[in-house]
Amino acid sequence: MEKGRLLYEGKAKQLFETEDENILFVSYKDSATAFNGEKKENIDGKGILNNKITTILFDQLKSQGIESHFVEQISDNEQLVRKVDIIPLEVVVRNIAAGSLSKRLGIKEGTPLKHTIVEFYYKDDELGDPLLTNAHLELLALASPEEIVTLQSKALEINQVLMPIFKEIGVTLIDFKLEFGKTANGEILLADEISPDTCRLWDDKTNNKLDKDVFRRNLGSLTEVYEIILSRLGGLSK
Amino acid sequence: MEKGRLLYEGKAKQLFETEDENILFVSYKDSATAFNGEKKENIDGKGILNNKITTILFDQLKSQGIESHFVEQISDNEQLVRKVDIIPLEVVVRNIAAGSLSKRLGIKEGTPLKHTIVEFYYKDDELGDPLLTNAHLELLALASPEEIVTLQSKALEINQVLMPIFKEIGVTLIDFKLEFGKTANGEILLADEISPDTCRLWDDKTNNKLDKDVFRRNLGSLTEVYEIILSRLGGLSK
Ligand SMILES: Nc1ncnc2c1ncn2[C@@H]1O[C@H](COP(=O)(O)OP(=O)(O)O)[C@@H](O)[C@H]1O
Ligand SMILES: Nc1ncnc2c1ncn2[C@@H]1O[C@H](COP(=O)(O)OP(=O)(O)O)[C@@H](O)[C@H]1O
Ligand SMILES: [Mg+2]
Ligand SMILES: [Mg+2]
Repeated sequence: MEKGRLLYEGKAKQLFETEDENILFVSYKDSATAFNGEKKENIDGKGILNNKITTILFDQLKSQGIESHFVEQISDNEQLVRKVDIIPLEVVVRNIAAGSLSKRLGIKEGTPLKHTIVEFYYKDDELGDPLLTNAHLELLALASPEEIVTLQSKALEINQVLMPIFKEIGVTLIDFKLEFGKTANGEILLADEISPDTCRLWDDKTNNKLDKDVFRRNLGSLTEVYEIILSRLGGLSK
Repeated sequence: MEKGRLLYEGKAKQLFETEDENILFVSYKDSATAFNGEKKENIDGKGILNNKITTILFDQLKSQGIESHFVEQISDNEQLVRKVDIIPLEVVVRNIAAGSLSKRLGIKEGTPLKHTIVEFYYKDDELGDPLLTNAHLELLALASPEEIVTLQSKALEINQVLMPIFKEIGVTLIDFKLEFGKTANGEILLADEISPDTCRLWDDKTNNKLDKDVFRRNLGSLTEVYEIILSRLGGLSK
């Protein structure tokens, strides 16, 4: 599959066309950003780590019946995916309070939630990715109410698969962000990436953060902790 | 009814006990605040205006079948109300985009919404009165899911009564904030105040703002526009 025209460059990935109009070429960048792009740094090796981790997680999801846009890994930092129309919503699943939820509700980081919750944020850098209520979702009409229900239940299903995957490698899945898109025939498909950029992952023994909070909060080397995740997922040999 | 011990002093009102443990004495202050207390000013006459406007609106609501905590006006800036346990939620009704909704969703101020929406904010100054989704409301359990539905439908009912009251005096009710409380027997009752402090009111002819945005955005004299509202509501003689 040949890498064609650059279609879109985001903060973490480049998307290229291929000779198949339904397939995109994704190149993971060595760039870390936080706080809506305010903090930004080049980090050698990050792209490779996220490409490999995402590959493993999408593979595992597939083997447990959850389809995604992922087609195949092409190189250390590249993969092929099915092209979708991204629904501009960040679907956030939270098992344990952390980050913006802790700040918003005044719940101490690390407090288990009574039950897992799903939040929707408007994926819009100019607006700062604002939190949306159901009323806002209806107003914006980025997805139909039925589609919102589908996104919510898919997100919870994915959580049910991811939690034990991480539990088995000694990591608690605190929260994570998903993006979904629509295929040409209107099917809703999990897209984007699942990596320590998009998950909060805490080591069960040390409670250490093994995710992008290391970068956001200057807690150490990002690649060191992403490597821990990749190696525990069995991906260092790949 | 005698004014007893000061029970609580807020940004806009003082609450005093009375000899009846179910009745409070409310004194409206001459103080204007905005942006969670960051902007603050003493404004002579504001307390009287809000006391009189709230009195008229709670009276009108009552005459149209909507109960509130309001008992009677006692003096220019004082009224008696039924004591309730305030549910720490700000229930916001929006007919037209303005303020934080416009900022959040990138909708130009003045754009009519496809339909009226209700938002819930956590009434907590330290947290900055954050917006809450249904999931957050369930987590916080400040009210049961059934009570949340009741708050929502009461808020919409109140909107149906208030909109024509304002329309008749040449004013569009853009949005407003309500607070509800629980009586000793668990009944949910409209409480607090309904005034230009808690509503956005735009003049139909001039489009001028006749509400606290005049203070928030330094658009002129607050008392002048509150007086316009009071006089159009027929309250200047009182
Ligand atoms: N399968 C796909 N088809 C089309 N676009 C996708 C697909 N998967 C992810 N995207 C989009 O690719 C873009 C680049 O990703 P990224 O660099 O993470 O961007 P961002 O800076 O918006 O987070 C994002 O807008 C993302 O939504
Ligand atoms: N009927 C009532 N019984 C008890 N408390 C009330 C009642 N009505 C309003 N309150 C509360 O009175 C307090 C004082 O009002 P205000 O000065 O507007 O306070 P704030 O600064 O919290 O907005 C608020 O906490 C409000 O919720
Ligand atoms: Mg991204
Ligand atoms: Mg108040």
